[in-house]
Amino acid sequence: MDPYEPLPSHRFSFGLWTVGNAGRDQFGEPTRHPVDPCDSVRRLGELGVYGVSLHDNDLVPIDASPAERDLLFRRFRMALEHSGLRVTMVTSNLFSHAVFKDGAFTSNDSMVRRFAIQKSMRSIDLAADLGASVYVLWGGREGTEVEAAKPTLDALDRYKEALDFLCEYVHDRGYEIRLAIEPKPNEPRGDIFLPTVGHALAFINRLEHPEMVGVNPEVAHETMAGLNFGHAVAQALWAEKLFHIDLNSQRIGRFDQDLRFGQENLKEAFLLVRLLENAGYDGPRNFDAHALRVEDENGVWDFAKGCMRTYLLLADRVRSFESDSRVIEAIGATGASDLGRPTVGTYTRETAGALASEEFDLEALAARGYANERLDQLLIEHLLGV
Amino acid sequence: MDPYEPLPSHRFSFGLWTVGNAGRDQFGEPTRHPVDPCDSVRRLGELGVYGVSLHDNDLVPIDASPAERDLLFRRFRMALEHSGLRVTMVTSNLFSHAVFKDGAFTSNDSMVRRFAIQKSMRSIDLAADLGASVYVLWGGREGTEVEAAKPTLDALDRYKEALDFLCEYVHDRGYEIRLAIEPKPNEPRGDIFLPTVGHALAFINRLEHPEMVGVNPEVAHETMAGLNFGHAVAQALWAEKLFHIDLNSQRIGRFDQDLRFGQENLKEAFLLVRLLENAGYDGPRNFDAHALRVEDENGVWDFAKGCMRTYLLLADRVRSFESDSRVIEAIGATGASDLGRPTVGTYTRETAGALASEEFDLEALAARGYANERLDQLLIEHLLGV
Amino acid sequence: MDPYEPLPSHRFSFGLWTVGNAGRDQFGEPTRHPVDPCDSVRRLGELGVYGVSLHDNDLVPIDASPAERDLLFRRFRMALEHSGLRVTMVTSNLFSHAVFKDGAFTSNDSMVRRFAIQKSMRSIDLAADLGASVYVLWGGREGTEVEAAKPTLDALDRYKEALDFLCEYVHDRGYEIRLAIEPKPNEPRGDIFLPTVGHALAFINRLEHPEMVGVNPEVAHETMAGLNFGHAVAQALWAEKLFHIDLNSQRIGRFDQDLRFGQENLKEAFLLVRLLENAGYDGPRNFDAHALRVEDENGVWDFAKGCMRTYLLLADRVRSFESDSRVIEAIGATGASDLGRPTVGTYTRETAGALASEEFDLEALAARGYANERLDQLLIEHLLGV
Amino acid sequence: MDPYEPLPSHRFSFGLWTVGNAGRDQFGEPTRHPVDPCDSVRRLGELGVYGVSLHDNDLVPIDASPAERDLLFRRFRMALEHSGLRVTMVTSNLFSHAVFKDGAFTSNDSMVRRFAIQKSMRSIDLAADLGASVYVLWGGREGTEVEAAKPTLDALDRYKEALDFLCEYVHDRGYEIRLAIEPKPNEPRGDIFLPTVGHALAFINRLEHPEMVGVNPEVAHETMAGLNFGHAVAQALWAEKLFHIDLNSQRIGRFDQDLRFGQENLKEAFLLVRLLENAGYDGPRNFDAHALRVEDENGVWDFAKGCMRTYLLLADRVRSFESDSRVIEAIGATGASDLGRPTVGTYTRETAGALASEEFDLEALAARGYANERLDQLLIEHLLGV
Repeated sequence: MDPYEPLPSHRFSFGLWTVGNAGRDQFGEPTRHPVDPCDSVRRLGELGVYGVSLHDNDLVPIDASPAERDLLFRRFRMALEHSGLRVTMVTSNLFSHAVFKDGAFTSNDSMVRRFAIQKSMRSIDLAADLGASVYVLWGGREGTEVEAAKPTLDALDRYKEALDFLCEYVHDRGYEIRLAIEPKPNEPRGDIFLPTVGHALAFINRLEHPEMVGVNPEVAHETMAGLNFGHAVAQALWAEKLFHIDLNSQRIGRFDQDLRFGQENLKEAFLLVRLLENAGYDGPRNFDAHALRVEDENGVWDFAKGCMRTYLLLADRVRSFESDSRVIEAIGATGASDLGRPTVGTYTRETAGALASEEFDLEALAARGYANERLDQLLIEHLLGV
Repeated sequence: MDPYEPLPSHRFSFGLWTVGNAGRDQFGEPTRHPVDPCDSVRRLGELGVYGVSLHDNDLVPIDASPAERDLLFRRFRMALEHSGLRVTMVTSNLFSHAVFKDGAFTSNDSMVRRFAIQKSMRSIDLAADLGASVYVLWGGREGTEVEAAKPTLDALDRYKEALDFLCEYVHDRGYEIRLAIEPKPNEPRGDIFLPTVGHALAFINRLEHPEMVGVNPEVAHETMAGLNFGHAVAQALWAEKLFHIDLNSQRIGRFDQDLRFGQENLKEAFLLVRLLENAGYDGPRNFDAHALRVEDENGVWDFAKGCMRTYLLLADRVRSFESDSRVIEAIGATGASDLGRPTVGTYTRETAGALASEEFDLEALAARGYANERLDQLLIEHLLGV
Repeated sequence: MDPYEPLPSHRFSFGLWTVGNAGRDQFGEPTRHPVDPCDSVRRLGELGVYGVSLHDNDLVPIDASPAERDLLFRRFRMALEHSGLRVTMVTSNLFSHAVFKDGAFTSNDSMVRRFAIQKSMRSIDLAADLGASVYVLWGGREGTEVEAAKPTLDALDRYKEALDFLCEYVHDRGYEIRLAIEPKPNEPRGDIFLPTVGHALAFINRLEHPEMVGVNPEVAHETMAGLNFGHAVAQALWAEKLFHIDLNSQRIGRFDQDLRFGQENLKEAFLLVRLLENAGYDGPRNFDAHALRVEDENGVWDFAKGCMRTYLLLADRVRSFESDSRVIEAIGATGASDLGRPTVGTYTRETAGALASEEFDLEALAARGYANERLDQLLIEHLLGV
Repeated sequence: MDPYEPLPSHRFSFGLWTVGNAGRDQFGEPTRHPVDPCDSVRRLGELGVYGVSLHDNDLVPIDASPAERDLLFRRFRMALEHSGLRVTMVTSNLFSHAVFKDGAFTSNDSMVRRFAIQKSMRSIDLAADLGASVYVLWGGREGTEVEAAKPTLDALDRYKEALDFLCEYVHDRGYEIRLAIEPKPNEPRGDIFLPTVGHALAFINRLEHPEMVGVNPEVAHETMAGLNFGHAVAQALWAEKLFHIDLNSQRIGRFDQDLRFGQENLKEAFLLVRLLENAGYDGPRNFDAHALRVEDENGVWDFAKGCMRTYLLLADRVRSFESDSRVIEAIGATGASDLGRPTVGTYTRETAGALASEEFDLEALAARGYANERLDQLLIEHLLGV
């Protein structure tokens, strides 16, 4: 049996919009046909996938009649049942329709803001109907190209107001749903509010129900700004706020590429898998990426299989790395285990006094090597499967 | 009288290390002579500056004897008195000495961590002695090039431990000092922990005394990662955490340039001055920059004067912009004032129910223009002094 | 009379695709209605514009019948005549249709490559018909996300083959048309071939008819990679290859923003206008930008007027800067005029021998200041209209 | 025997400044002791290295007396002899001394420019003495922070003048030496002239002796600007101008990191090794990198061994990739081999006429998939040693 064969127990999920991506981009028309969500579900089920995530409008067009909505919904539930997949996450599309061009929760038009909250309530209902436990908010249109036209302090007030309202709604309806903010630095707006995992975590702390809201970091988004994604995910874990995660790959300083997991930055991907597996993250490993525009339908499934296979290969490399005695010894030489021990402990006047008069041999401390090159070379070799 | 002449009431301050910068860089030797801090203070006083900020070792070398320390300290207090300047901020140099090569509060060596806390306690004492009300922490060496050698979760624990200890120390000593974290994405480390204002704000929320700790955003640092500095400062203000600010300029995606305020990104500088002045920020406007390496001593003072003059010119442009009736009308056309009004108000089952059944004319809402081009063009013209 | 009123003598041109941009982006649907090219021409004429530039398919859809083509063409010529505008540049759309997903001249499919050359020949015919003297080639799809799938050496051979063929075609048809390559680093491809002005200039030197081919630098494209656009344009001028120029603005390290000229980087815009005006560049000042997506139709014209007005304002600031005696003196202090004089002249054994034994007082030379801060501050103040 | 043991036949070389790097950085003091070049040579010889490269001042301080120079030189030749290493490349340090703060060949001070040429002549003599066949020019100080202080057209004239003079000098002295320009986008200057491989190639074409001058691309330098290094090296090969290469690694959009080869961007490193090996590049594989600042002396040699070992491991992976029948088949499916065949051949009126009337089935051509995902996944798996 192939040890890298995906199984539902691996908890892989795909957005409907990922395998359904038709290849349209800023400069070109679609290269693939639209895909029926039910077909995607069926096919993903065959591949060993655990779940699907979706925007409301991946399933039901924004202008569908109630009857159409019900029909689409019924067909989709059936497809889920047949495939054995569950819906792991739902989100609301607050960015495609022209109505959101100036923002959704932070549009300068209060009617648009009201519509955005209404649409979100309905998407939360959908999440509850479909059994999703996470509801993601990506504020792709919340931002500016012209700062003078949108006072940031007011925008943050409105953003908070919307999330506070939605938290109360979830609570009032008795839903078992947690919210997760997905940060992104820019694109489609010149500058998006809550541009990084850090800004989102800081924002959450000012909400009325911070305990209900976490983050959904995406590899490509932090990477666009050249930030270290592993550090960001670790800080989210440290704050107990990693509610969901979007996996893909990306080059720094480029448009949003949404590449196959592992296509770029294999080492960062390895370190990310290591972090998630070692931290016991038990949410879905959600792929938010799409096949390259040059692919036909076969390429879409090559892409999907590749995402999962690379994750499993890297998880395997992580295990070999962790258990290699040379690695254990090399980690020891870096002093990393010492970092797990308190430096001074809790403050007392006595510990402070003792520390104040402690003497240090700076030259000796400065002479110590931390052996990072050696450990990193071992890591590279494990990655290369040597 | 020159309306752009700096006065102490403008609250400009300079780091001793800025006008004292000798022009050494990664690839070249110093181009200017070392400067006596007392000379800097005297000269800054003549220019109408309000205060100076400093690292402990800007004043007292790390290996000075107690007698040398006292002498240097006494001379410096005298220079301050003569010049009328105050010390607005103190920080500890936890990055230059080789002992900190693997980090200070997050070094893998616990003795280095202890030394870093001791050195910080002494710098806090110095801040108290000099009457500074803000103590800044820039963790330039807290980070990684080799992630496997420094577990991020442990590093964040140690970082927190150090700050919690220092907060207790400040409290225990009865000092009226607030702490401010200065984030930076990278350089000198490949990836620095707490890379942005957002990450620092999020971190502060996990401390034992979050009320004592804020941020010290620096233009160059957020800009290196291509993030919008105005948005970051606004989020800090929104969180009531703007305890200090470092002004300079920088191109995106480059090494840390620390250019003269306004040298790059004049529009962002305008928007920043507007934000600070309108928000009533009353802390020092601290310049953390230095003259270009091609300058001799005269150029250093051209640089210092230029920083302040450009700030005052921009403040003037802000006032003309704010009071121009065409601008007021153009801001109206963007709908910005509507953003200051609640969207839905506090949640009740009734407001939620009403919203759920509200009908929206999406086509009409989507057809509305937000007139950002017009406002932005007016802003550009005010900037150009038309 | 408004001194900043655009006149045809200012040689401003706009792409049909710029004022005709409907606001669709990677994440959202159009926000404006399609525009009839004839209406654009009429309106631009009223604004004092000199010319229009266009892709073949801005005028004639790719699937138009010959009769439709003729009708559209006839109407367009009439609109040009009525408005007094000329066509300053023509290019071929080799990127929108799905057929070009893997490249045009460098597609892995030879039939696509042949079609791309045929389409270019027809666009060149169109350029000749419309009296355009420049034909631009933007190879937006010539590039890779997966390098192993497209050998770069072969791709460069094919790129050269196509350009050599088209040069011969122009020559054979007796057209008075020069070709200009428009470089771009990435987007829509992960990495585009000939990513910068430098790479394009180097490529041209390997063509069979280098004298027929130059470059069309675009502000946004060099800026995406953080390169200095002024330096790039200067190198093109130095190589006598600045055949056309695309003006707009952009933040470093972001998706292709195509912002209003001067919206970002006002100082760089000033330096660019100064370079073009002082170098006597006499081609069109072509705006390749578009109104923000939040604008309605009125905003489109605010955008277009703003582009030209800012150019003229900056040209005015350039003149005031050049003629200010303080600036002239400050430039003198930088030593810039010395740079115009030969260092050693032509090599002879004697001059080399003399130089070999020359003695230099390094300390004295190193002590000299170059007074860049002072000049730059004056420039900033001219920009601010002080 | 270890198949990844470096041998002189692998043609690895190291800069003296790389293993000799003392760990000083912009924010910190050295962390390691200075190294005697003779010790470096001896140690590198033991590791199986082929050659060393050097700046004049790596060997002889800028202020050494003739007697000191001769002594140092004699000892160095002896060390080379004993170790069996050769000098593969020499360059001149035109950036460390304060005299070069405004540039070397393009300084605004003609005396500095003359000194820079004299120093280069002496370094070329040194290259000839040491038997190096390549002389590299890295113009780290040739650039600007304040464009108005340095007219780019004049700067390019002076740059050309210096290189023309040095070419004549080499020729006149009968040296068998080729020159190679090493481009870099920024750091230490805000913007460096000839920022990329492309700009350097274009510049060379304007020299009096273009045949004597090529490029020395460095991984970190193109990568800083986010450009594709493999594409740049390929374009240099295509122009027959790859005279030397500097290997290391780097993250996009950061300060110059000079990391161990393969530490970052393993896939790009694989593609680079593949390109060099397949193109038959027979120059030295020169490592221009240094051990992390946290390393002691042992770490320096871990670093050096790691650079070579990773190169050899990747070369091995390249061979396995090339010979895997699944890969060969997958490359076939991308159509890559078709790209090696002419599209239209040489222009004749007949071929043009035939092409003009050719009919294309666009829908069929657009429907084709190019199977890039599949090939890339195979590449990733070869990299992972599956």
